Amino acid sequence: MFSENMVCRVSLLSVVTVAVGAVPYPPPQPDPFPAYYSTHWIEQPTDHFNALNHDTFKQRYLVNSTWWTGPPAPIVFYSGAEGSGIQDIFAHSGWVLELARNLSAMAVFGEMRFFGGSVPFSEPFERLPSRLGLLNVEQTIADYAMLIEAVRSANGADASPVISVGGSLAGTLTTFLRLKYPSIVDMGIASSAPILGYEGLSDQYAWNRVATQTFDKQAPGCSDMVRRGFSALLSATPGELKTAFNTCTPPTKDTASSLSAQLIGQLAAMAESSYPAAISPVVAACEAISTRSGAGMFNPLLVTPGECLDINETFDPSSSDLAWDYLSCTEIVHPIATNNITDMFPPENETSSADWCQYFFNVTPRVSWMPESMGMARLQDFAKQTSHLIFSNGLQDPWSTQSVTQSLSDTLVAVNIIDGSHHSDLGGSMNPVPSAGDSDTLRAAREEEIRLLREWLPEAVHARAPRLDRQTVLV
Amino acid sequence: MFSENMVCRVSLLSVVTVAVGAVPYPPPQPDPFPAYYSTHWIEQPTDHFNALNHDTFKQRYLVNSTWWTGPPAPIVFYSGAEGSGIQDIFAHSGWVLELARNLSAMAVFGEMRFFGGSVPFSEPFERLPSRLGLLNVEQTIADYAMLIEAVRSANGADASPVISVGGSLAGTLTTFLRLKYPSIVDMGIASSAPILGYEGLSDQYAWNRVATQTFDKQAPGCSDMVRRGFSALLSATPGELKTAFNTCTPPTKDTASSLSAQLIGQLAAMAESSYPAAISPVVAACEAISTRSGAGMFNPLLVTPGECLDINETFDPSSSDLAWDYLSCTEIVHPIATNNITDMFPPENETSSADWCQYFFNVTPRVSWMPESMGMARLQDFAKQTSHLIFSNGLQDPWSTQSVTQSLSDTLVAVNIIDGSHHSDLGGSMNPVPSAGDSDTLRAAREEEIRLLREWLPEAVHARAPRLDRQTVLV
Repeated sequence: MFSENMVCRVSLLSVVTVAVGAVPYPPPQPDPFPAYYSTHWIEQPTDHFNALNHDTFKQRYLVNSTWWTGPPAPIVFYSGAEGSGIQDIFAHSGWVLELARNLSAMAVFGEMRFFGGSVPFSEPFERLPSRLGLLNVEQTIADYAMLIEAVRSANGADASPVISVGGSLAGTLTTFLRLKYPSIVDMGIASSAPILGYEGLSDQYAWNRVATQTFDKQAPGCSDMVRRGFSALLSATPGELKTAFNTCTPPTKDTASSLSAQLIGQLAAMAESSYPAAISPVVAACEAISTRSGAGMFNPLLVTPGECLDINETFDPSSSDLAWDYLSCTEIVHPIATNNITDMFPPENETSSADWCQYFFNVTPRVSWMPESMGMARLQDFAKQTSHLIFSNGLQDPWSTQSVTQSLSDTLVAVNIIDGSHHSDLGGSMNPVPSAGDSDTLRAAREEEIRLLREWLPEAVHARAPRLDRQTVLV
Repeated sequence: MFSENMVCRVSLLSVVTVAVGAVPYPPPQPDPFPAYYSTHWIEQPTDHFNALNHDTFKQRYLVNSTWWTGPPAPIVFYSGAEGSGIQDIFAHSGWVLELARNLSAMAVFGEMRFFGGSVPFSEPFERLPSRLGLLNVEQTIADYAMLIEAVRSANGADASPVISVGGSLAGTLTTFLRLKYPSIVDMGIASSAPILGYEGLSDQYAWNRVATQTFDKQAPGCSDMVRRGFSALLSATPGELKTAFNTCTPPTKDTASSLSAQLIGQLAAMAESSYPAAISPVVAACEAISTRSGAGMFNPLLVTPGECLDINETFDPSSSDLAWDYLSCTEIVHPIATNNITDMFPPENETSSADWCQYFFNVTPRVSWMPESMGMARLQDFAKQTSHLIFSNGLQDPWSTQSVTQSLSDTLVAVNIIDGSHHSDLGGSMNPVPSAGDSDTLRAAREEEIRLLREWLPEAVHARAPRLDRQTVLV
């Protein structure tokens, strides 16, 4: 009933940066910024909103206090999101440490529940209200609110403002944390945070339009090649596919559409990693496919030389994949589709995702709850709801189409990086640490972010200073 | 292990106005303000924070659109709390309709989950995470956020600002609703809302100090009588108690302390209902006990003439009592104690409540979660967290000691009513509807509240007017 195609379709939503298959990348910088931390654990309720549920779990967080000068110097808190673990996020978010150093701040990286080592239940996660049902944005930001207060308390840092930061979903979490716990989180940087990625707030075709534009920007004419490649792929006979991709087993009638879905996700994700240009997977992929033609044009993206291509891979998600898929079926439901007009991909709409979510998790995406409960449905008066947030975006990143790229007030400031990619200001898989080779525009954006935080910090420090033990009752 | 005494101790926390036992009250005004409404129901998730829980329940709400002139005229939303049902709250909140009339607003009264007709589960409520565990402040304000958006949608009233109002816990809910859903609730009146009634934010003895002051204000010297009454009661022999209270069965060694606990709750609650002075139960009670002396001084408060006093009443709470007790053991944990120095009652501390909560519900009050997660722990910068709230208090009301009685900003305004009692501005059991006999101070307070709302409304209307379809993406 549900083909692998649909599974791949859903995984397209993943914001995890996907590395291009067999294209030989330039290796990461050999001399990374010193990324060291101490690991800590905090006991959290598995359900913050149910006093009769006494279950707890251990949540992991990483701390680097090297540069912290004590209160009221700030705490930079990374509101971790999905992925294989917070240590990986730490490793590719080098600028967050740079930021901490710059502000004499403590750096704390929180790990999202159900990911990495912060797993409330034994795996695999059962599809029950008392298990996977406890994975959501509200529980996650409640975890972080408690974690931040615990860190403040343990360090006598009640006077220290907290700057929450995060890229991608972590940036969305930073936004929501600031919105819902303004007494705990004083300001934030939401980098490439798709808070507007909800029905009615974003054009579902914009995401792949920008992906396509990024391909043509970094490799002029590449989108035409890609179009030809998909056209050839989808009209290929099983025999042609066998030859083109050296499949381990004979292709079936579904093989072409399955490979197509996989390639859409893979190619589009390259646009997310398109900074720095010198090592962009977009450039590498376009070069690789330019040497081929016909159905096998995408061979270099899928096939490891000397090996056959396994087209019978079963859907056997890891726990973190499953947790991510669940999120993308419930609250993190970002509309992404293709139309082959404004983008280079075969047309594909989103309806299959909802069917798949129903089938696989027995959930229907509750598309209006996030924008209504978090206020994005009323973006026009967002400035009356919150303040002191930086929304940064790399404009080569498809996610910029679902993010805030215009300032909404003096303290809700958009920072756009024309040659930036997915959370490239904080760091990413292709630029894990700040580098001497960083572009002028990226440097300027980072400087602007630091300038804004420095401008906002004195008021936050003042506001946190003890003034009243409590109000004086007049009676 | 746990005596009835402790049960009574817990019920002291109840904010439900308790009528004095056998004292003949003047009847309520014979010509009540026309209290009519239509009854509606909305389907709500039993758990807003768990996509795998598909259970729903029907939540009741009452609507009066008599005076509404359509959008952008506002919606006055009463954020109902505990009690026997929203129709009772409606009936004693007459000024809320007056407010709606004054502002050409629609009046909507929401009924809190687990109370009245808005019961998610069959009774009695089981002490399980999947049952009583779903009763809390977070679920309740999520209900109201969804209800308000549904009402707006059904009435084409997206442009209408919502003014949330509530008295007592309902006022606390109004505050939290505005804090957590600022895009949905534009402003509010939190009347007699004990949002500061948490450990470290309020003096636990203040509540009964004000109760005692109210007694002496309305019946000079009464507190001395009450002290003598408790002294005689607690030193009485079983034989003396039998005579003094005409008990149906012979008193035991626990009878005196049990009656004492019951009387503390009963007397203190009278201060909550001490407006209007002309029919104050405080005055009536003080007159009644002034005719007696010795252990039997409190006889008129407990014994119905011609009947014996049942001292063996078992603890058999109604569903709504149970739901309230659960709230008062989890999130609505207001510190109230007596010391017999600043108050007229026998000394009693609060520790027994925590023991009882553990015993009866297997919960430990999570005392820091509400002030931390809702921001009262940082009252000093509450004005940076929220805005456009009126905190009104009757200063004869003991709850005023746990409420905001000093303005915190231009738009977080305290309105104090020197001769007012518990949510007497909205209406109460003794003044269910506005009356020609209302005091000048109460009238002035109501006028000030309307003036503030009128001042705030144009900006809220402007903010809600459509300006941008969505932001323009710069790419």
